[in-house]
Amino acid sequence: MLRAALISKPQKPELAQLLPELIGWLRQHGYESLLDPESAAYLVDMETIEPIDRTDLPKYEPDLVISLGGDGTLLSAARAFAQTNTPIVGVNLGSLGFLTEVPVNELYETIEAWMQGSAVLDERSLMCAELVRDGRHFRTWDALNDVVIAKGAIARMGEFTIKLDGQLVAGFRADGVIVSTPTGSTAYTLGAGGPILMPQLDAMVLTAICPHLLTIRPIVVPGDAEICVAVDVVPHETYLTVDGQEAVELLLGDAIYCRRSKHSVKLLRLRPNGLFNVLRSKLSWGSR
Amino acid sequence: MLRAALISKPQKPELAQLLPELIGWLRQHGYESLLDPESAAYLVDMETIEPIDRTDLPKYEPDLVISLGGDGTLLSAARAFAQTNTPIVGVNLGSLGFLTEVPVNELYETIEAWMQGSAVLDERSLMCAELVRDGRHFRTWDALNDVVIAKGAIARMGEFTIKLDGQLVAGFRADGVIVSTPTGSTAYTLGAGGPILMPQLDAMVLTAICPHLLTIRPIVVPGDAEICVAVDVVPHETYLTVDGQEAVELLLGDAIYCRRSKHSVKLLRLRPNGLFNVLRSKLSWGSR
Amino acid sequence: MLRAALISKPQKPELAQLLPELIGWLRQHGYESLLDPESAAYLVDMETIEPIDRTDLPKYEPDLVISLGGDGTLLSAARAFAQTNTPIVGVNLGSLGFLTEVPVNELYETIEAWMQGSAVLDERSLMCAELVRDGRHFRTWDALNDVVIAKGAIARMGEFTIKLDGQLVAGFRADGVIVSTPTGSTAYTLGAGGPILMPQLDAMVLTAICPHLLTIRPIVVPGDAEICVAVDVVPHETYLTVDGQEAVELLLGDAIYCRRSKHSVKLLRLRPNGLFNVLRSKLSWGSR
Amino acid sequence: MLRAALISKPQKPELAQLLPELIGWLRQHGYESLLDPESAAYLVDMETIEPIDRTDLPKYEPDLVISLGGDGTLLSAARAFAQTNTPIVGVNLGSLGFLTEVPVNELYETIEAWMQGSAVLDERSLMCAELVRDGRHFRTWDALNDVVIAKGAIARMGEFTIKLDGQLVAGFRADGVIVSTPTGSTAYTLGAGGPILMPQLDAMVLTAICPHLLTIRPIVVPGDAEICVAVDVVPHETYLTVDGQEAVELLLGDAIYCRRSKHSVKLLRLRPNGLFNVLRSKLSWGSR
Repeated sequence: MLRAALISKPQKPELAQLLPELIGWLRQHGYESLLDPESAAYLVDMETIEPIDRTDLPKYEPDLVISLGGDGTLLSAARAFAQTNTPIVGVNLGSLGFLTEVPVNELYETIEAWMQGSAVLDERSLMCAELVRDGRHFRTWDALNDVVIAKGAIARMGEFTIKLDGQLVAGFRADGVIVSTPTGSTAYTLGAGGPILMPQLDAMVLTAICPHLLTIRPIVVPGDAEICVAVDVVPHETYLTVDGQEAVELLLGDAIYCRRSKHSVKLLRLRPNGLFNVLRSKLSWGSR
Repeated sequence: MLRAALISKPQKPELAQLLPELIGWLRQHGYESLLDPESAAYLVDMETIEPIDRTDLPKYEPDLVISLGGDGTLLSAARAFAQTNTPIVGVNLGSLGFLTEVPVNELYETIEAWMQGSAVLDERSLMCAELVRDGRHFRTWDALNDVVIAKGAIARMGEFTIKLDGQLVAGFRADGVIVSTPTGSTAYTLGAGGPILMPQLDAMVLTAICPHLLTIRPIVVPGDAEICVAVDVVPHETYLTVDGQEAVELLLGDAIYCRRSKHSVKLLRLRPNGLFNVLRSKLSWGSR
Repeated sequence: MLRAALISKPQKPELAQLLPELIGWLRQHGYESLLDPESAAYLVDMETIEPIDRTDLPKYEPDLVISLGGDGTLLSAARAFAQTNTPIVGVNLGSLGFLTEVPVNELYETIEAWMQGSAVLDERSLMCAELVRDGRHFRTWDALNDVVIAKGAIARMGEFTIKLDGQLVAGFRADGVIVSTPTGSTAYTLGAGGPILMPQLDAMVLTAICPHLLTIRPIVVPGDAEICVAVDVVPHETYLTVDGQEAVELLLGDAIYCRRSKHSVKLLRLRPNGLFNVLRSKLSWGSR
Repeated sequence: MLRAALISKPQKPELAQLLPELIGWLRQHGYESLLDPESAAYLVDMETIEPIDRTDLPKYEPDLVISLGGDGTLLSAARAFAQTNTPIVGVNLGSLGFLTEVPVNELYETIEAWMQGSAVLDERSLMCAELVRDGRHFRTWDALNDVVIAKGAIARMGEFTIKLDGQLVAGFRADGVIVSTPTGSTAYTLGAGGPILMPQLDAMVLTAICPHLLTIRPIVVPGDAEICVAVDVVPHETYLTVDGQEAVELLLGDAIYCRRSKHSVKLLRLRPNGLFNVLRSKLSWGSR
């Protein structure tokens, strides 16, 4: 039997109705549903399905992942399934998302299109961030959006040294540094003054957060480059955050290396990616 | 006998020689020196002067404050003496500062000019920040530069509502909000995209830090206005920081009211304020 | 008999119906209507009213000016009546304007409120720009929004020297320079990176257009200051434009002095100025 | 006999001495010198060399081009030789340039390195801009830096529609639009808020100049994409400018298509490209 993993955002009342329907519809189409605890929590009165932790779901090798929520839910699903090739349907329950372009009323149509081989596969590069501590590998993460290295709440700047492929770029004081994928360029880095990168561009963008030096500007580098952010001064506390979700405190001398990941994420859609439709909608861009 | 309060930055080797000289010079001119602990620490081999905590110095009603260090030292001195009318000489030991325009080699000349009544008094407005918690007054601070309300290091945005004289301005998600005096406009807010305000302008400027909404822009308001920043969502931790030096953790529902302070700071100089000289030097502005 | 001057935007079909109604309503309330040629052009089938050139209208000393169009129409009306004290009702026929906050359906109510003395008078400062050529006064203009000194279409930069109250600020290369009133801060200068100034702030803001030097930032100066923009290099052609409407070509060595005007504009409204309502509407600012 | 084409900036006194030396040195190494009229003008007392118009120089098939001046001189040389494979030595006579990294005192060493096959070839992509008028091909240009479509000096905005690979991106009002290569990203577009693109990135960046809509942001697209800028409204006059040097007036309805050029420019250097050295020097970036 085929399998679909369902990953849900909590506290979305409409899911109490949608999830049982979806599970029934999937069963009719020959799919068993695997539920994360957030999804299972909506099924109070129904047959009991044993929930599976989000990070354990990949072990069950589902054929399809269905993310029900917003961009945050999809980011979480994408990181959990980063090392697989499983396609993900990103449904937006609220407003249109940069990643979750599938509205609820196109959910079944999108899955059917995929079953029939006519869905669009929108493949997005992941970025691999490696934390090197005391000169040794410490841990890696795969990010769909961005890696943020930023100071704590108290208003003192950190000091960072940036290298590209081992060459010094600059050393400067700032609140932090963002390294973003093209996919993440419409997320946090946009508010810090970063440019918009087309998803199919093979690149990363480095943006400083409130740099003391006014001439520091966003830098777009080739996808096969290696960006190194070294933490020279740690004011109070400095954190590394991946996709706005996982965080680890950094120590003086830590260095973060950002490179293209070996993995990617496959987003299923009914029609080709409409980044500019989303931008025109979310940013009130004109369309004369 | 007249009194001069000496406030020093730690770990400046040149002060080990300068301070004894200065104390002698002041005594010859009829001034007793009052030293903060940082200044006293430089006087290892010399007569013992009992150090006085920086915040206690105003009780001794000195006639003059001499700040020896950089802009940070002067900010600290200015806040300590905010409620007095005592003039401050801000000496820069390192590079030219926005606040500390007096180089070491003009120190004695500047003090002599002041004794003779020919020094320039550069009066700077202070801003009063009041923290209201649970609807009640909690505490106030006088700021020479700025008040920063900002999220912690983990990359999740806070949500803030801004009011001006009780009228709603906007509610938005951002890393934080800066309310700055004209004096502070060349400090932290500049890196967040704020404009430069001439020191004699009677105004405050509100700048969002990395706002999610791209249309949020710095707002300059009259000096007699009241800006209220209400903290609607507290992600992990949010801090209020005054002049980059004093910090307090904020709670959900806290509101910070920024108004013109009743107090001001009097900076002594040999010649009229040279803001644009400093900007041309520090920001590499041209001077064709 | 009392008089109302009507100033209209061309090619607004709704005015063919509105204008005769308005003229009738004004007559019933004891007002004779004075029409500019643009207004008269709408009155094809009606009694003939002799049109009066917009710039001649002030000679007839109307008691009230009614501007029917958008912000551009109001800017034109405001400059024509700059040297009088005549109040202006700015009606917006299209979308909400920064200056024209009165919708058509509140037009009669607003005029009635004014007749009864209960309307709000929103007084806006004008800026006086003086062009000095060959060291001699050449001409002055009153601007409600801004004065723009900018290079022609061919992509070569001009060079400008800025002085404030006779003191050198900076010399730099740029596409141009904008000097704006608080009222104009939500107009052209906003797109060039300028801050928003509250209308009641007594100030001007100077913003460079695409400066070559990345550290040149908007500068906000007191309303009683004098900004001088000297044109050092004229690439191809450089123009001075007032409120985006009147333009004059500049020559090498020309200097433009911007100061507070002796005159101001009085905008009539039904209720106090709602700048932030307009900003929330036009810039999609939130209002949580 | 081998040939070297010499292209010079006018009014550089040091060239009166350098050029005869260089011509002699080249002859000793077996190279005949071809001079553009600007170069020939420096050789008053010397042997007469018949000058050749810059655009005619490629017909003589020189083996090497030597550009003596600044980035502007090199841009001109690069466009003249765009359709050849001739390597160019870009000597900077004044301050360090983004393109002209070879100082005068390394000129001979660089040419010798090239003769011995040990020089670095820094290959830069060109962008091809095609002007389509009345639906038909009108003209094309190869640009090393950028293509600028911008309004005239009078402060009224133009209206532009942007398409990417035939898909609508946005329509908006602005002073103009810049489409830049990675090489050009450190030139004009930087002052308009564009990011810095590494030269080896296969991409173009589109930046609006003073857009009326605050949410319009620089967009970085893959090098194999096609950007179309359509001119919807022509206020007074609008020009297309290539590399800041060649300009043509645009008409209503004109469309400019920007694509990767088939050609590229080969810059000769003694050592690998030092973009970040130049940025640290020109933008005062730190290097802690």
